[in-house]
Amino acid sequence: MSGNKAVAYKGPGVVEVIDIDYPTFELKDGPGVNPANVGRKVPHGVILRTVATNICGSDQHMVRGRTTAPADLVLGHEITGEVVEVGPDVEFIKVGDICSVPFNIACGRCRNCKERKTGICLNVNPDRPGSAYGYVDMGGWVGGQAEYVLVPYADWNLLKFPDRDQALEKMLDLTMLSDIFPTGFHGAVTAGVGVGSTVYIAGAGPVGLAAATSAHLLGAAVVIVGDMNAERLAQARTFGCETIDLSNGDPGSQIEQLLGVPEVDCAVDAVGFEAKGHGHGAGEAPATVLNSLMDITAAGGSLGIPGLYVTGDPGGIDAAAQKGALSLSLGTGWAKSLAFTTGQCPVMKYNRGLMMAILHDKVSIAKNVNAQAISLTDAPRGYAEFDAGAATKYVLNPNGYLD
Amino acid sequence: MSGNKAVAYKGPGVVEVIDIDYPTFELKDGPGVNPANVGRKVPHGVILRTVATNICGSDQHMVRGRTTAPADLVLGHEITGEVVEVGPDVEFIKVGDICSVPFNIACGRCRNCKERKTGICLNVNPDRPGSAYGYVDMGGWVGGQAEYVLVPYADWNLLKFPDRDQALEKMLDLTMLSDIFPTGFHGAVTAGVGVGSTVYIAGAGPVGLAAATSAHLLGAAVVIVGDMNAERLAQARTFGCETIDLSNGDPGSQIEQLLGVPEVDCAVDAVGFEAKGHGHGAGEAPATVLNSLMDITAAGGSLGIPGLYVTGDPGGIDAAAQKGALSLSLGTGWAKSLAFTTGQCPVMKYNRGLMMAILHDKVSIAKNVNAQAISLTDAPRGYAEFDAGAATKYVLNPNGYLD
Amino acid sequence: MSGNKAVAYKGPGVVEVIDIDYPTFELKDGPGVNPANVGRKVPHGVILRTVATNICGSDQHMVRGRTTAPADLVLGHEITGEVVEVGPDVEFIKVGDICSVPFNIACGRCRNCKERKTGICLNVNPDRPGSAYGYVDMGGWVGGQAEYVLVPYADWNLLKFPDRDQALEKMLDLTMLSDIFPTGFHGAVTAGVGVGSTVYIAGAGPVGLAAATSAHLLGAAVVIVGDMNAERLAQARTFGCETIDLSNGDPGSQIEQLLGVPEVDCAVDAVGFEAKGHGHGAGEAPATVLNSLMDITAAGGSLGIPGLYVTGDPGGIDAAAQKGALSLSLGTGWAKSLAFTTGQCPVMKYNRGLMMAILHDKVSIAKNVNAQAISLTDAPRGYAEFDAGAATKYVLNPNGYLD
Amino acid sequence: MSGNKAVAYKGPGVVEVIDIDYPTFELKDGPGVNPANVGRKVPHGVILRTVATNICGSDQHMVRGRTTAPADLVLGHEITGEVVEVGPDVEFIKVGDICSVPFNIACGRCRNCKERKTGICLNVNPDRPGSAYGYVDMGGWVGGQAEYVLVPYADWNLLKFPDRDQALEKMLDLTMLSDIFPTGFHGAVTAGVGVGSTVYIAGAGPVGLAAATSAHLLGAAVVIVGDMNAERLAQARTFGCETIDLSNGDPGSQIEQLLGVPEVDCAVDAVGFEAKGHGHGAGEAPATVLNSLMDITAAGGSLGIPGLYVTGDPGGIDAAAQKGALSLSLGTGWAKSLAFTTGQCPVMKYNRGLMMAILHDKVSIAKNVNAQAISLTDAPRGYAEFDAGAATKYVLNPNGYLD
Repeated sequence: MSGNKAVAYKGPGVVEVIDIDYPTFELKDGPGVNPANVGRKVPHGVILRTVATNICGSDQHMVRGRTTAPADLVLGHEITGEVVEVGPDVEFIKVGDICSVPFNIACGRCRNCKERKTGICLNVNPDRPGSAYGYVDMGGWVGGQAEYVLVPYADWNLLKFPDRDQALEKMLDLTMLSDIFPTGFHGAVTAGVGVGSTVYIAGAGPVGLAAATSAHLLGAAVVIVGDMNAERLAQARTFGCETIDLSNGDPGSQIEQLLGVPEVDCAVDAVGFEAKGHGHGAGEAPATVLNSLMDITAAGGSLGIPGLYVTGDPGGIDAAAQKGALSLSLGTGWAKSLAFTTGQCPVMKYNRGLMMAILHDKVSIAKNVNAQAISLTDAPRGYAEFDAGAATKYVLNPNGYLD
Repeated sequence: MSGNKAVAYKGPGVVEVIDIDYPTFELKDGPGVNPANVGRKVPHGVILRTVATNICGSDQHMVRGRTTAPADLVLGHEITGEVVEVGPDVEFIKVGDICSVPFNIACGRCRNCKERKTGICLNVNPDRPGSAYGYVDMGGWVGGQAEYVLVPYADWNLLKFPDRDQALEKMLDLTMLSDIFPTGFHGAVTAGVGVGSTVYIAGAGPVGLAAATSAHLLGAAVVIVGDMNAERLAQARTFGCETIDLSNGDPGSQIEQLLGVPEVDCAVDAVGFEAKGHGHGAGEAPATVLNSLMDITAAGGSLGIPGLYVTGDPGGIDAAAQKGALSLSLGTGWAKSLAFTTGQCPVMKYNRGLMMAILHDKVSIAKNVNAQAISLTDAPRGYAEFDAGAATKYVLNPNGYLD
Repeated sequence: MSGNKAVAYKGPGVVEVIDIDYPTFELKDGPGVNPANVGRKVPHGVILRTVATNICGSDQHMVRGRTTAPADLVLGHEITGEVVEVGPDVEFIKVGDICSVPFNIACGRCRNCKERKTGICLNVNPDRPGSAYGYVDMGGWVGGQAEYVLVPYADWNLLKFPDRDQALEKMLDLTMLSDIFPTGFHGAVTAGVGVGSTVYIAGAGPVGLAAATSAHLLGAAVVIVGDMNAERLAQARTFGCETIDLSNGDPGSQIEQLLGVPEVDCAVDAVGFEAKGHGHGAGEAPATVLNSLMDITAAGGSLGIPGLYVTGDPGGIDAAAQKGALSLSLGTGWAKSLAFTTGQCPVMKYNRGLMMAILHDKVSIAKNVNAQAISLTDAPRGYAEFDAGAATKYVLNPNGYLD
Repeated sequence: MSGNKAVAYKGPGVVEVIDIDYPTFELKDGPGVNPANVGRKVPHGVILRTVATNICGSDQHMVRGRTTAPADLVLGHEITGEVVEVGPDVEFIKVGDICSVPFNIACGRCRNCKERKTGICLNVNPDRPGSAYGYVDMGGWVGGQAEYVLVPYADWNLLKFPDRDQALEKMLDLTMLSDIFPTGFHGAVTAGVGVGSTVYIAGAGPVGLAAATSAHLLGAAVVIVGDMNAERLAQARTFGCETIDLSNGDPGSQIEQLLGVPEVDCAVDAVGFEAKGHGHGAGEAPATVLNSLMDITAAGGSLGIPGLYVTGDPGGIDAAAQKGALSLSLGTGWAKSLAFTTGQCPVMKYNRGLMMAILHDKVSIAKNVNAQAISLTDAPRGYAEFDAGAATKYVLNPNGYLD
């Protein structure tokens, strides 16, 4: 039985590689584990040797110290791995399979899972519907930025790649199936993107770029990405997106220059509650993105909102923000008959189709988000560079599969 | 050529029956008519002798003086009538037809109409997508609380009843097809109501009762209506609804008593921006309903929002309310993956099916909303009693068809 | 360990109550068990003491000798039971739970199950996608017309009733959730039935009556049922259906008398391949129903086809029928832009909502199909009477719960 | 007022360019005009100077003499034109607009049009729902393979291109919006094609190639086209399709070589009733394609059927074929829970989005179908070459716009 190195949150601004226990088929006590989950048996689980595990923007909320995450919480919910042990109740997943792990943990046995709503499984998080690996207040499932990780309900959760060699060859693309590619796709789908749509995506981080990639894949006529980070906007232009620099102000007039009208059919919020105001030097303004999207979405349109909004934010700019209240001009949306879809992406609804698109060379998600493999020990650097705005999606390589 | 008596807004709290011109196939200048619409030719229109025309809650926003409606604006967007003249371009509607008029005016020739989004027609209101009869800032189409009214694009807009005698016999039901029945139905549909759903409807006014009726018609298992008006709640109980008195506080615990859980599958906001806070003696609090619905809707649910939210409200309780900004706990909704649908109901999407349900005795909407016919001259009384909270839907009877 | 009495097919026209083994958590060899399934471990299963188990029209295909079913095949795929033992991998279902068993057996772990297509599960039947209890060529899962039965993948398959006493009180309704109520509902849904629809249902057997019940529940304006069995038509009239006696010929002109037009919006085939021609004394004519439905469905309509069509029928009337080929006037359907949906109902998509409708008294399915409880030993009589055309749904009561 | 040259059917195998009257705003008597349509006023129409008008496979059914089309029927339902005169009731379309004409004529005022089912408009064809220009038994609207053509209900039917110069530059692509591009797209959509799908398309004629193009645009992972015409299969390979030569027999085993399984997720029938059997030298066998598609579509899949099936075919191979009856193995489809969608494509549902995709260079439909402009006088050659199997979509250029 080997040891297990993992990336842990140590305190605001600090992540470190630490040694943790090799997983067993039981959820043991540890940092952030919900007491009601301690000792939970996981005979339906498998142990994966991690092939690739990515740093995600939502990890940054914890690392920046804007949550109640405890020290030594092991991070990582974007996981792809090779099965090395299977629990006694696992029937169809086998040792040696290379699989993608949806970031939302789901039981496959509750009402919501049966309705394909795996982002709000009722049986995995004692606090509320929905869970994820390595995340605060999500039940305490150990994160996957580690050499080995336990995945429960493996027959349900895992997406097995059909061919091992092909999978390893395309791993930088396939690793995006655990979160950002389906998440961006869900944003585009719930924004109503279809063949011929005009689309605006707020945010050129990895989720925004994945949403833009998805909009192209869904047949959008024009995909416009807005951000204040020049490097990330340049990245968006590498795969056929139009871009808008929000340092220059609200997107409406820039959209008009591109389309002849100041509106798009569909809009995606790939930013969430840590939004900044538009214009040069603007500070944090959590309602900025949603109010802006209501302005620039045409009547009858939809907003897909994969960007995270929280119920409490100790680091919020004012009392309202700290309790998660946003000042929204809903009347603007109402007058235009807009619709809004929020929440975690139910990854299992999309990952198989997106895998097929990757395996058959219909889409280049790794290139579009500028995926870069780094070693597990380099994770702290990856977190820091990503937080500083690098136009890079960092993929950790704990076991050398990506060499 | 006869004269034409009509109900007009005279100033805050005052409506009067006045004499206006008999309509012609042209939109002439008058109170509230958009200059860009003055002189517009309407060869595609018909003139209706009004059979029934209802007082609507959204008329009350104007009558209470909370809009910029000018004096002498003729009210009324819930219209059923008999065709007495047809314009030269009308091909399929004939003199003598009894027809329901969707409150949203639509051209049948723009992109949105072609996509069935008749609530946001692009060609009828110079100010923005969407229009209605007798309403401020909607282009200036003359209201239908009158003896005669002009309906443009008649072949497109009108729903002809198949049999004249049958129509007149069921008129108190059929008159609800112009607005509140489809509007309530749209609320229920966009809230995701289906066979077996548990549903909460905020507001027991006519739209709320129509939404409750619709939820039953769609097969809901349990329909719960919340309000602070005891008489209206009693009305809801007459057709199989459970009720919650919001004077006693937030609905969650009362829902739990009814269902065993403090949540429903689907929620409808049939109140809008003039919401009051919950609890005894609470004052106006425009975000109350939406925040409350996010609390009591189960994860994965949807909110249908037919209740009106505005972009500006001179009578709002504070600066934020006056510009239409609501303080919404969107994080609560996001954590539960809720979806939200706003806007005017596209009546034409639903009115034919609802008509069939009425004609074949599947539903008793008039009874459920307690429809009462009164004379045109009694309109001021109807407005006053409705504003005072009567559990009654007032139907004006300008030409004696309902006697 | 108790014994286990069960209803078995003995040969054409003959069913008998026999003694079989009490189930264990393994699929043992026996009549009709696919060799590839012999010895299959079922740690994810539960053993149910049968509360109610119904005789189904599709059982009759076997009993009439029109399949390759072997002697001693235990019948029964409509099962409701009390859990008396749980396998080691079962996590959420508990001993004492009263549960409905969807007739389609599904693993909850394959691509199709993850997409809610539980009627075509890939892991339960070695021959082809999809399975059922007690049915020829379905893998060999032992039928449930028995005192005890094994249900695999119990956490996934079972629908637990929330309250034991309430469940037992409404058992004659709830037992219809295992097959005919969802099957009829699926027929109505895939026929496009919605609020205000006009609907024609071919066949007044239990599935036809369940489809008619479903159409009413979905808000249909008019529900018309056609058959040649006067008693069954009378049963349909007890709950608000119009009826057509097909002994008098094709349904078109009779529909016209009812609706004023010879067409309906939606049509359901609740008959299948053993159809008879229309008109007095007509013989078997397997394409009759589908050709007739294409005639009487309005352009733009849909046909829901829960009625079974087979790939081979040794008892077919001619060579074409024996290999399952039908002579269909598809051009008629094409000219009208009709759509067709075939196949087993995926019960899990509907059973929870229908359960809620039953528990909250929105629907009386037992009354509508004339459910009658009989003892297990009376099963042969039930089969015979049902085959002779009784307007009765026979519910077996092997353990006295229904007394 | 100019003359008007047009392409007419003269008899089996013969088309000729003839002189016909310049259109007026009335449907006059002529070859194939339904008596009930003679003298119909068309004040809502416009007269177009034809910019491009394509030869369609469905024209060939008439030209081959397999219909009751009368001599001198003017052909052509794929029309793009410049507006040269507008009727008095036309409000939004203006002289000089360049517009695409959906091949289905629709009134924009009946129930079906209001429901977006413009392929089965109730008001344009006295014989039955649905109509088209220049087609037998479709009401008698004069065909558009002419210098000038009348288009009724112009505000409803026409899709105006936003910029004249851009439109003329991309005309070989845009001309496909009148029929084959939306028709192929409808086939793909109703077959359930989405991101990651595997798709089989029967037929590599222009509609098949348009369906393949559409499948790619919708994000399909693999698009396989089957035909017996080597030149057309080569054309399919030019834009990333896999191909199957049906001269070598049924497609199943060839699909297995490509995908590892003998099945696809989605199937499109772009052939219709004039299908030939598979294998070398096979003769006409009208049920071949549908039976084959049921074989090779995976359980749970859908068949889109844009290929035409008729209610009568005087040239059919036997008595059954002559009355449009097909011998279909529906049991195969039923066992797999397949769904089927037939009928004319409702062009207006798709043409705007596809136009946007063309204008923004997302798709190259002209290149994919190998569009070639020829003069009006060369139409007879175009018909002959197309009938002989040329891998070419012939676009007539009656007024020199395409020079």
